[in-house]
Amino acid sequence: MDNTDPDAVRVFSLNCWGIRYLSKYCSQRYHMIGELLCKEKPDIVLLQEVWSEKDYLFLKKKLSCTHPYTHYFKSGVIGSGLAIFSKHRIHDTLLHRYSLNGYPYMAHHGDWFGGKAVGMAVLSLGSLTANVYVTHLHAEYNREKDSYLAHRVVQAWELQQFIRHTSAGADVVILGGDLNMHPQDLGNRLLRSYTGLRDAYAETAKFDGCEGGVTLIADNPFISQKEIFPFEKGIRIDYILFKGSSRAEIGCDSMSTTKGSVADSPFPFSDHEALTAELKLNSAQTGNDKPCKTPDSLVDIVTEARTEVKVGLHCAERMRYTAARTGVMGLALLFLELAIAAVPWFALGAEQPFPQTSFYLLAALCFAILLTTFLLYIFYTIEIKSLQGAEDQMRLAVALRHSCECLCF
Amino acid sequence: MDNTDPDAVRVFSLNCWGIRYLSKYCSQRYHMIGELLCKEKPDIVLLQEVWSEKDYLFLKKKLSCTHPYTHYFKSGVIGSGLAIFSKHRIHDTLLHRYSLNGYPYMAHHGDWFGGKAVGMAVLSLGSLTANVYVTHLHAEYNREKDSYLAHRVVQAWELQQFIRHTSAGADVVILGGDLNMHPQDLGNRLLRSYTGLRDAYAETAKFDGCEGGVTLIADNPFISQKEIFPFEKGIRIDYILFKGSSRAEIGCDSMSTTKGSVADSPFPFSDHEALTAELKLNSAQTGNDKPCKTPDSLVDIVTEARTEVKVGLHCAERMRYTAARTGVMGLALLFLELAIAAVPWFALGAEQPFPQTSFYLLAALCFAILLTTFLLYIFYTIEIKSLQGAEDQMRLAVALRHSCECLCF
Repeated sequence: MDNTDPDAVRVFSLNCWGIRYLSKYCSQRYHMIGELLCKEKPDIVLLQEVWSEKDYLFLKKKLSCTHPYTHYFKSGVIGSGLAIFSKHRIHDTLLHRYSLNGYPYMAHHGDWFGGKAVGMAVLSLGSLTANVYVTHLHAEYNREKDSYLAHRVVQAWELQQFIRHTSAGADVVILGGDLNMHPQDLGNRLLRSYTGLRDAYAETAKFDGCEGGVTLIADNPFISQKEIFPFEKGIRIDYILFKGSSRAEIGCDSMSTTKGSVADSPFPFSDHEALTAELKLNSAQTGNDKPCKTPDSLVDIVTEARTEVKVGLHCAERMRYTAARTGVMGLALLFLELAIAAVPWFALGAEQPFPQTSFYLLAALCFAILLTTFLLYIFYTIEIKSLQGAEDQMRLAVALRHSCECLCF
Repeated sequence: MDNTDPDAVRVFSLNCWGIRYLSKYCSQRYHMIGELLCKEKPDIVLLQEVWSEKDYLFLKKKLSCTHPYTHYFKSGVIGSGLAIFSKHRIHDTLLHRYSLNGYPYMAHHGDWFGGKAVGMAVLSLGSLTANVYVTHLHAEYNREKDSYLAHRVVQAWELQQFIRHTSAGADVVILGGDLNMHPQDLGNRLLRSYTGLRDAYAETAKFDGCEGGVTLIADNPFISQKEIFPFEKGIRIDYILFKGSSRAEIGCDSMSTTKGSVADSPFPFSDHEALTAELKLNSAQTGNDKPCKTPDSLVDIVTEARTEVKVGLHCAERMRYTAARTGVMGLALLFLELAIAAVPWFALGAEQPFPQTSFYLLAALCFAILLTTFLLYIFYTIEIKSLQGAEDQMRLAVALRHSCECLCF
């Protein structure tokens, strides 16, 4: 299916679940994704969780004819996992790392190692300039007791800030990715209200895909029921968002998602469903200069976000205090041990009552405690600074909003 | 001295050298800086190395009447050290962390712990919108054998990217800070050529200050001669840069620096000299729409930068290899030790020949080697990813430039 309308832009987004040796059928799925993209030829392809550069290079080679312009965003230990493929020339790229992204010691969740970020590419769509963003926010592992909520809210805050500040020169803004947030979640509301981005699924004229636009579905064999419980119909956490400017109108003509199973294949493309949105551009002079109107509820949303950040801050401060206290106890234990060992040494002639093995094991334990608590202390300090920074900016936003209201009356 | 011309903006920049308990006369100097700012009342104050939040709060209180709008940028373990005070309302702020910033184990240089970044504030100057940036790049400790050159070049690259992408909506752009680069250093050329920013010192009509505009001078009692050798007249590493837009013209009417000694005080404000630039704005319709013309030498500059980044990359790869090799040796040593200890255990009846003390000490050494090399391996991997990311973007920039030239001919 080739795109013949010069004013239409087809955008594709997929979380590829590309953890080599851990994700099931990884290379086979990349083959399938490559085939799909070669066939469908969307204008812009936004991929997440392309953790291995080798897989990116495989796709780059596979799509070299259909999508000659491409960029892989590098960040963190493993990478950001973000990649963009385009039919249209990429003029510039920029990566903005989120200040918070989970905890390194939660290795089984692994988010911290991914260096989560938002990648931006500046594209030419005919005579228009499009800023295209791709991102992947921290996963939600437990909706009832979400210990990463503050981190995800700060990421959503930093995402909206980055988009707002970098898109002033763009005619069109497109964001695709795995936001790991339900449509009405706080971070999502924060993002949409501040940037004025519109949800392709909510705005599309035609839709073909999973009911409710869900992108994590129970039918997917790579997903355990636990992950989406209690939303047995699935959840919508992947999005394509867009907005125009005073120089160009944009709307969503049609949208589709994959539906779990793939013809001629025993498994789907990924554990997420892929999204495709056909956006219609209009660069007429009568462009919809809808100024990014900040709704009246903006103060409420930011206040809600501040509350979450404050809860996270309180938690981080408590954790840092615990780390410091444990460190002090480790130090005290070490001194105690040295004192016990030193007593017979001072009382010349007395025999050493401390068994050597225990002495060394205890000393090693003390050093391990000291090192671990020191590293944790540093880590929590960075977390606290980042949370405080976000909270400062939110406070500024609320204060400005209040002062604007005062001026209006 | 109050600013009466509504179209004039006085910008002040100073690296405060505010390391509590380490910097000499820290609190006295903050008192002096506060007094100076209260007296001079510059419109915008850009401070670096305000490491302690207490010192920031002291200044905030002191300047509450003259500079009601202020922001302290939080980042890293200690903070970013960046602060901005303004007479004009701050509408929004954004912090962008550099991906590279030295090495944590070079604790005596300390840069890594500072979380170096660029801070942005959006200000209203009358009817104009100004994007004001404040930054502090990695220090240069040895000009002849600068092991941080690649890091500083990447920081300059990321700085120009951030300014370009965030300033499209601004009428006026102002950057102040300690760039830790001489005027013709690679990073400085990269920054100026890409952004079109103009150097206040080079453009000013009137100048009053140290000869050559130097900001690190031999007369300063806090500086050792070694730091500025062989530039006995001093070096210029602090800057105020600016540019206008199609909507506003900007020029520099006058500029001044402090000259080391301060009247009625036995010591100067800091180890750096303070800069003040009086900028003249003109929001006439005939604004100098000098498009940020990229000079012909841009490709050369980026190519030079790519070379430096590649050298850095090569060095980081070598270091990572060394870390990996040392780790493998540590592991081999551990296995060897366990094997030696296990032999008599298997040969029942034989006596353990391995002295217990040596056994535990050696095992502790092996674990320490393994842990250290593991952390170093992770760290160098992050460094490599960041350097590769910057190099990718530079390659894209050169390729684009070449393709533009092809189109022109």
